[in-house]
Amino acid sequence: MSAPSPLASARQRPAPGPDFSPLTALLTPRSVAIVGASGTPGKIGAIPVAMLREYGFPGQVFPVNPKAQEISGYRAVPELAAIDAPVDLAIVAIPAAGVLETLETCASLGTRAAVVFSSGFAEIGEDGVVAQAAMADLARRTGMRILGPNTLGVANINAGLVASFCPFFRPRFAAGGAIGLVSQSGAFGGYVANLAQDRGLSFSSWITTGNEVDIDVADGIACLAEDPGTRVILVYMEGARSGPRLIAALERARDAGKPVVVLKVGRTEVGAEAAASHTASLAGSDAVYDAILRQYGAYRARSVAEWFELGYAYAVGRPPKNAKVGLITVSGGVGVMMADEAVSGGLDPAPLGPTAQERIREIVPFAGTRNPVDVTGQMIGDLGRFAEMVEVVLAEHDYGSIICFNAGAGHTDESGFRIQKVWQDVRTHHPDAFIAVSGAVTPPVRRAYEADGCLVFTEPDAAVRTAAAMARSPVAAARGTMPDPMPRMELPEGTLDERTALRLLGEAGLPVPDARAAPDPDAAALMAEEIGFPVVVKILSPDILHKSDIGGVALNLRSAEEVRAAAVRVLAAARTHAPDARIEGCLVAPMLDTRNGVETILGVHVDPVFGPVVMFGLGGIFVEVLQDVALRLAPFGLEEAHAMIGEIRGAALLSGARGRPPADVEALAQALSDLSRFAAAHADRLESLDINPFLVRPRGEGAIALDAVLVTRRGDA
Amino acid sequence: MSAPSPLASARQRPAPGPDFSPLTALLTPRSVAIVGASGTPGKIGAIPVAMLREYGFPGQVFPVNPKAQEISGYRAVPELAAIDAPVDLAIVAIPAAGVLETLETCASLGTRAAVVFSSGFAEIGEDGVVAQAAMADLARRTGMRILGPNTLGVANINAGLVASFCPFFRPRFAAGGAIGLVSQSGAFGGYVANLAQDRGLSFSSWITTGNEVDIDVADGIACLAEDPGTRVILVYMEGARSGPRLIAALERARDAGKPVVVLKVGRTEVGAEAAASHTASLAGSDAVYDAILRQYGAYRARSVAEWFELGYAYAVGRPPKNAKVGLITVSGGVGVMMADEAVSGGLDPAPLGPTAQERIREIVPFAGTRNPVDVTGQMIGDLGRFAEMVEVVLAEHDYGSIICFNAGAGHTDESGFRIQKVWQDVRTHHPDAFIAVSGAVTPPVRRAYEADGCLVFTEPDAAVRTAAAMARSPVAAARGTMPDPMPRMELPEGTLDERTALRLLGEAGLPVPDARAAPDPDAAALMAEEIGFPVVVKILSPDILHKSDIGGVALNLRSAEEVRAAAVRVLAAARTHAPDARIEGCLVAPMLDTRNGVETILGVHVDPVFGPVVMFGLGGIFVEVLQDVALRLAPFGLEEAHAMIGEIRGAALLSGARGRPPADVEALAQALSDLSRFAAAHADRLESLDINPFLVRPRGEGAIALDAVLVTRRGDA
Repeated sequence: MSAPSPLASARQRPAPGPDFSPLTALLTPRSVAIVGASGTPGKIGAIPVAMLREYGFPGQVFPVNPKAQEISGYRAVPELAAIDAPVDLAIVAIPAAGVLETLETCASLGTRAAVVFSSGFAEIGEDGVVAQAAMADLARRTGMRILGPNTLGVANINAGLVASFCPFFRPRFAAGGAIGLVSQSGAFGGYVANLAQDRGLSFSSWITTGNEVDIDVADGIACLAEDPGTRVILVYMEGARSGPRLIAALERARDAGKPVVVLKVGRTEVGAEAAASHTASLAGSDAVYDAILRQYGAYRARSVAEWFELGYAYAVGRPPKNAKVGLITVSGGVGVMMADEAVSGGLDPAPLGPTAQERIREIVPFAGTRNPVDVTGQMIGDLGRFAEMVEVVLAEHDYGSIICFNAGAGHTDESGFRIQKVWQDVRTHHPDAFIAVSGAVTPPVRRAYEADGCLVFTEPDAAVRTAAAMARSPVAAARGTMPDPMPRMELPEGTLDERTALRLLGEAGLPVPDARAAPDPDAAALMAEEIGFPVVVKILSPDILHKSDIGGVALNLRSAEEVRAAAVRVLAAARTHAPDARIEGCLVAPMLDTRNGVETILGVHVDPVFGPVVMFGLGGIFVEVLQDVALRLAPFGLEEAHAMIGEIRGAALLSGARGRPPADVEALAQALSDLSRFAAAHADRLESLDINPFLVRPRGEGAIALDAVLVTRRGDA
Repeated sequence: MSAPSPLASARQRPAPGPDFSPLTALLTPRSVAIVGASGTPGKIGAIPVAMLREYGFPGQVFPVNPKAQEISGYRAVPELAAIDAPVDLAIVAIPAAGVLETLETCASLGTRAAVVFSSGFAEIGEDGVVAQAAMADLARRTGMRILGPNTLGVANINAGLVASFCPFFRPRFAAGGAIGLVSQSGAFGGYVANLAQDRGLSFSSWITTGNEVDIDVADGIACLAEDPGTRVILVYMEGARSGPRLIAALERARDAGKPVVVLKVGRTEVGAEAAASHTASLAGSDAVYDAILRQYGAYRARSVAEWFELGYAYAVGRPPKNAKVGLITVSGGVGVMMADEAVSGGLDPAPLGPTAQERIREIVPFAGTRNPVDVTGQMIGDLGRFAEMVEVVLAEHDYGSIICFNAGAGHTDESGFRIQKVWQDVRTHHPDAFIAVSGAVTPPVRRAYEADGCLVFTEPDAAVRTAAAMARSPVAAARGTMPDPMPRMELPEGTLDERTALRLLGEAGLPVPDARAAPDPDAAALMAEEIGFPVVVKILSPDILHKSDIGGVALNLRSAEEVRAAAVRVLAAARTHAPDARIEGCLVAPMLDTRNGVETILGVHVDPVFGPVVMFGLGGIFVEVLQDVALRLAPFGLEEAHAMIGEIRGAALLSGARGRPPADVEALAQALSDLSRFAAAHADRLESLDINPFLVRPRGEGAIALDAVLVTRRGDA
């Protein structure tokens, strides 16, 4: 690993050796010491020593045990200090009480990283929290990276390293696996190792982060992004300790071209903080994770099965290079099912042209010829003709994926290998296609398929869903360019009045109306004449959020007299219904015709983990009843803004549904991006911001913010 | 089977024997003849003879083969006529050319049912279609029931009957399986048999319907509804030949208390018939299947995996008796994942009370105690304490389901059986709970769990999803009572004008405005005075659907003069913009305030398979952009109408979202039910019907149809 550790700069730790950072020591140590090593099989201190032997770890191994001479064929040492060579990685498998002292010794001897199996820290309550804080301090102080405590450990199968007491590394995983795993749960990490054993799959590397005193899930992702054996990163996540570090790790994986497939729990958790504004209540933290993962190119799986299938597919097969899919089936109905899945997943079952269809009919007169191609039961008896049909399909379009349902054909090794040979030929001529077969396949035949990079699925629909997920995955697409940062403005503190909020947004580049603050009814009338009729008059007070509810709004005023009367009325209503509110006068603004456009809502919520997040939704029932919103971490550019707009279910309303003119989506995207720049520039000052409604007019006519509530917090300075 | 065949009455076939209907002969024949029987292993005519022997079929078996003496230990006969006993079931395994003659012979000898393996019929094109029509005629004429042609056959494992050449009946399935399968695809049926073999599951009965010349998927479901061994009916379906027969079969299964789990392909097919009205374009036939399956208590699975998991769960386990779920986990995060799935699936992870939580903490101080109960790694080493915690959970609520994630614990037979013993005790004390474990389980331990009716899943989320699907399944709930039929009315033919449409709907009991037809402007003014101002005037013509587009609507008219002028204007506009339209004058109706209520759309579409279907949705973007509609087969009562209203995503809008008053849902439900009665009474005359908008006012204030387009077809008489 030539690049510095993702945290090195942030933490001011001692400079690592010229070619060897502390995090490198976690996955590719040159030497390993096991403190608490044991020769008694099954003991927590015995398993890693035995594993290092079984996996043929090529570096030096030092079991530390004052009573033993030798463990698993390695010469034991009585104590750490007795080791006469540098130790890159220490495994700590002793009771909690002795851990801190041991780690101090490790650090003083120059150990780069430590894996602490020991439990009895933050997970047991207050005493443990204190001990763990001391461990965190030790890591910061010494620069030694610590995995755990309370971790099942780490493994790098390709490097022969198993620094874990998880029982599922037996039987031995083969070298050459391409799946890297980071799990925030040891139990789940072990379970996944068991799943992999059952499927005959191997890992490149496997990391369980335990209590995350130092190395966290983001570090794990960053490690795997640079692990040469890892082609796909599977992440099991409960939450991130630092949003920016998670994002940096996701970017690193994306830059390395490695897909990240995330299983994050807590989907239905209602956001912890109750907040007054819509934005906050909608941008509950799981929704923010969802948006961030999408924004930074990770794929969030909806089930354990999907998550693991995707890991399998990326590790063994090739991602589709385009959305076109060729479907081949022995059952017409299952072909329809595959087409259903393809279309719902965004794949394109592009039909064969007439000549190709004619050719298929020549081979099997009653075959389905369009796509899916239903080869009928003929293929079982006549693989020559089957192969011909497959060739016709492949020659027709540059299909990014080819998926076949064999049903029961190929259920014996003999018949299975005959069909597999057909696909082997296909693979030779189409080395970069996603190829998958589904149906009955025996384990030896499955292995033969997989050796060629052809995927095998039990269910035909799962094969198509996986191809679709891979085709959708934005791994390679670093979306658009970042906008320039916005200069910081002077923000007052607290809940700002509408006039101030709109003025600030206007300075930030958002389209706002000519809204003026009038201290009294006469001034209001004067301003209305300058603005031009009709106008709207509203009470101006930072303390009154729901102005209409107290009679604080007068619409469609067409003369100076009407304005003056309305201002009197509105001010009186405020004095009556909100006697304690600070009244700053009236706001006078042009009366805009909201029928000529689409009402939307723009908002900003500051997520405790990730920082400022921009929310977009359509007005009315879309946000409030359907919770149809899109979220993005600020700041972002126009491309991301357009992606965001396209994400909501009601997006069709902006492109001219129901006979409306198409809306000015360009102006909306510009406003979203500008809002995101404003949010990013003032992240430390923003509490929440709602622009509701934000009216998007027909194309070419722009957009405008009609109301805004901006709440700021005290500046740090 | 004591009830008559589902088709017997419809088809006027000869009366079956007193205790033995022709369809009974399909699953439980007393004797079987195999025409085209062969002694050459692997031949299509050899497999069923060998299978009958291997499965120990207890009845008589007659291989028909003029050249053989004996096949698979059965004495062969040279021809059908040489059989000296009644034949209940004939298996026909000869080339297509001889099939019809053979079937004639079978029928003349009193054979009750025939399974025709032979291909070369409708699936090969025109010639085959003709031959198959002759076969259909034969079935009708003789009353002999025919499965196929081009079928993989039928099996009743519990009766030792395998009348199939599917290779996946080896190794032999155990008797006692509870899964009944009906598949419209032979290839898929074979594939499912292979899945079952892999999972160590057995079938009760297994039917592939082939070309469905006679016995179709509905007959298959009806057979399984009465098959004593079948506890769950898995259906793979491409489409139904007759809606009413499918419905009758689903009702029969429901009455027998047997869940029906359907995998229907063609989800994304755009409805075949293009139609002018909204209703038709929304009620594409797959959406109708979806609604019908829900309405008649079948569960439509969204994936092959879900379909099969549900079959497994119903066959092996117990459905949850309530929605409360107790979740037990060794990983806190996975507990959250399980709770996510529970909540999204409609289960209730009801928390433990304070005393129970305290008790859990006493057993394991750092356990998660609320629900999910996180027993922590402790359980691996100390099953006594694990069992105690499980007992605490079970004692707390009457949980309908208990689901546990063991992760890797129990990955050996030894540790696995120890955990399984805990659940065996639980099962003894809670014989009717849904109990599932997930994680690493060895095959022998899995079998031990299953023997006790405890389910085993690889993925924890799949276990919860399955429990949720079972808890949602409306198997037992025959919803509400059927409304009385509505007397038929005299309907004019063609596209009716708005006035006529509203009048007819009013006669059907729906709330309609006092809308009157005025031949000229003076009459319009007079009528407006009678109705009371304000009124609306619209052009009255069966040929003008989009009245506003041509200036054919005038709103909010407040005096006789305004009405007269508007009528002149509207009539002139129609003459200008629709010179060929039949103009019947103007419609005068009260001007209703649509702001005081929720605009909805009610419609009727006549599905070619199922007949009249009622559609309900919210107005505007809900139907047109979000396609958020609910469908029901007509007729239905109030209970079903309420279920329908609750089904749409925007339902919250009717119950008082966004500060509105709750809408008069009672009036809406009554209108939907009345509309369904109207649709059912005039099914043969209706082309389509749209009521748009149908305004639902605040609770207690009723509802009203504001516009209607009714298109009828010529009557049959």
